[in-house]
Amino acid sequence: MSDSESGPRRESRVRTARMEALSDGVFAIAITLLVLDLVVPEGSDDLLHALVHEWPTFLAYLVSFATIGAAWFAHTVISEFLTGATATLMRLNLFLLFAVSLLPFPTKLVATYISSDSNERVAVTLYGLCLLLMIAMISALWRYSESAGLITPDLTDEDRNYLRDRLLPGLAGYVVLILVGLVLPLVAVIGYLLIAVFLILPFLLLPFLRRSRQR
Amino acid sequence: MSDSESGPRRESRVRTARMEALSDGVFAIAITLLVLDLVVPEGSDDLLHALVHEWPTFLAYLVSFATIGAAWFAHTVISEFLTGATATLMRLNLFLLFAVSLLPFPTKLVATYISSDSNERVAVTLYGLCLLLMIAMISALWRYSESAGLITPDLTDEDRNYLRDRLLPGLAGYVVLILVGLVLPLVAVIGYLLIAVFLILPFLLLPFLRRSRQR
Amino acid sequence: MSDSESGPRRESRVRTARMEALSDGVFAIAITLLVLDLVVPEGSDDLLHALVHEWPTFLAYLVSFATIGAAWFAHTVISEFLTGATATLMRLNLFLLFAVSLLPFPTKLVATYISSDSNERVAVTLYGLCLLLMIAMISALWRYSESAGLITPDLTDEDRNYLRDRLLPGLAGYVVLILVGLVLPLVAVIGYLLIAVFLILPFLLLPFLRRSRQR
Amino acid sequence: MSDSESGPRRESRVRTARMEALSDGVFAIAITLLVLDLVVPEGSDDLLHALVHEWPTFLAYLVSFATIGAAWFAHTVISEFLTGATATLMRLNLFLLFAVSLLPFPTKLVATYISSDSNERVAVTLYGLCLLLMIAMISALWRYSESAGLITPDLTDEDRNYLRDRLLPGLAGYVVLILVGLVLPLVAVIGYLLIAVFLILPFLLLPFLRRSRQR
Repeated sequence: MSDSESGPRRESRVRTARMEALSDGVFAIAITLLVLDLVVPEGSDDLLHALVHEWPTFLAYLVSFATIGAAWFAHTVISEFLTGATATLMRLNLFLLFAVSLLPFPTKLVATYISSDSNERVAVTLYGLCLLLMIAMISALWRYSESAGLITPDLTDEDRNYLRDRLLPGLAGYVVLILVGLVLPLVAVIGYLLIAVFLILPFLLLPFLRRSRQR
Repeated sequence: MSDSESGPRRESRVRTARMEALSDGVFAIAITLLVLDLVVPEGSDDLLHALVHEWPTFLAYLVSFATIGAAWFAHTVISEFLTGATATLMRLNLFLLFAVSLLPFPTKLVATYISSDSNERVAVTLYGLCLLLMIAMISALWRYSESAGLITPDLTDEDRNYLRDRLLPGLAGYVVLILVGLVLPLVAVIGYLLIAVFLILPFLLLPFLRRSRQR
Repeated sequence: MSDSESGPRRESRVRTARMEALSDGVFAIAITLLVLDLVVPEGSDDLLHALVHEWPTFLAYLVSFATIGAAWFAHTVISEFLTGATATLMRLNLFLLFAVSLLPFPTKLVATYISSDSNERVAVTLYGLCLLLMIAMISALWRYSESAGLITPDLTDEDRNYLRDRLLPGLAGYVVLILVGLVLPLVAVIGYLLIAVFLILPFLLLPFLRRSRQR
Repeated sequence: MSDSESGPRRESRVRTARMEALSDGVFAIAITLLVLDLVVPEGSDDLLHALVHEWPTFLAYLVSFATIGAAWFAHTVISEFLTGATATLMRLNLFLLFAVSLLPFPTKLVATYISSDSNERVAVTLYGLCLLLMIAMISALWRYSESAGLITPDLTDEDRNYLRDRLLPGLAGYVVLILVGLVLPLVAVIGYLLIAVFLILPFLLLPFLRRSRQR
């Protein structure tokens, strides 16, 4: 058995184009469907006051938009360095898309129950679990791609460690905030917003993004 | 009349890019629209209990998500080996997309009536028929592509038989489960989930996927 | 002034890729959003009977799905022969997408009022006007592309006339059926279905589709 | 430090394909979701009269469709001349997509409150602010791309100034109309429609669009 046929590189590969197209579709739809849950106050005498009163809906909208945006950013960076897709990669990606397309539901839960005494914690915890699943799958996509030899050899080991290290704080942050949310739900939601902003801001400043991949 | 002009290869061909783009769009939208049917329980004292009470909705969501994912997998594998698209192929594809985009409706039927004595069987049967149509059209896409000479010559006969054989158990499984659903509707729904998982898991491990198609 | 700078070919051109991507997106979303109007009968004792009772909704769904499918077919064939896009082409295309994305609304009108004595004609007439606008814009896209010199020189004059002639019966058919619908609304709706089937069936059998465009 | 490593061109670049795909997805979905807010009048004796009575809904639909279309046009022109994407560009783009995907919400506000004495001004002002954010981000995308050296050197300085100058009147127009809307809300909405038409009509007639970008 030759070296190229053995080890983690054995699984057969297909183009990544279709996986990227389905993913961009699901990201785009999920991020846009969120707006359907912004409810127009009916028959209000003071529209501005009614809208301010609906702040939990807008906060949940903002957090979900920012987190899906951050996940799309990370997905784009990972795809940039893939040389092909395996069956396992596409399955992991389908789990990621499951979390992304599910997110509008816990978003609605948070928007509805953030001001409710009894159910606030349940809603925020389910929301945090969905965000955690999303970022965990992003991290799994990267780790699998590395171990399966799907990453372009242009990347140095230093670059790889750098990217992996950028993804870890997000994961740890979600775990901590899910626990915080059991006591202080609103603090957790604001924390989720900060993680998303943290992920969006520096993500593409990675040193190894000097050259764009040639296709 | 020369050989290349006669027989099943005569129909004129276009690029497959647009067919793939429309398909990825419909798959992505259908898989994401499913979330709109996850209803937030309003005015509940115990949110967690209310959500658990809605298990049929979540089960139907999961089955439909997995089946659309499996169909997209199969569609991607087939597209990977197409050398072009004919009018007939695009028409078959439109029938497939019809089943995919229709699926959220029987999904809602199942979510609404799975716990209802009188209508459970009707809902689950219509759901099974929609899944059957979806997988039957995937199978028809492959068989037509083969007979019309649209498949890349890189594939050996052995590879082709292998892929065709992978698609058949799904078809047979749906027919059996539609019949089972007339007596035991819930068993059929769980069976549909198992078929989807079965289709997703090993599908891309096919031996002929060793080389990615060069474009 | 040189010949290449004068006449209808003067307008500057861009890639067609973005126009195709936006169009495929709108076609895919419009064709998939239709399913949201298939309403699950609530609290029915006999689900099958309740669904059969909702036949106008399913008929309208089917007609709209088939017509958007037919328009997408025609759009794909036209794009196949474009060598570039001008500002005017993209504006005509935006009008087409307006009709496509608007169609779910008159579809709901027909589904709601087809069995209503007083409003049936209004609903069916508005529906027919939307279909007419859609096909008229497809026809305008083709005629403009020809006159602006955007069509690949691979096509013979015979091929061009053939394609133009295929689009005209649809236009005339819609005008006739809109008039018929003022007296016999249901007949018009069934006629719209037949036109869509007629457009889908032979469209890509055009003789000039022998060679796919090289990109 | 070499010249190519210093100054505004230092940031690392990725392909623009994914950014374009996500953007086309969000534009296509936002422009198509608008139709969901066109409400079918239920139980009306005179459907035509009931539809005419709903003119604010249709006016808001038309303005939003045209403005998203205009923004897509501008986005396409800008993308046409990009040689790559940086992290900052993708973040600016995400802000643009935020405004685009949010637009259906203020559109509903306008449709609901345009005929209401007390809330008309609030609704129209929020609508104008969302349009202003959208066009401001388009303008920011262009200015950043220029300053970061992301624009193809094929463009002359004259061409660049020309494009920048085309975008400014829109921005100024929105600021003026937001102020007008505080006194005459309906006039502002009609003004927004005129700006969109003004942006769609001549946008791609720019002199520098003579050559399409080679990819």
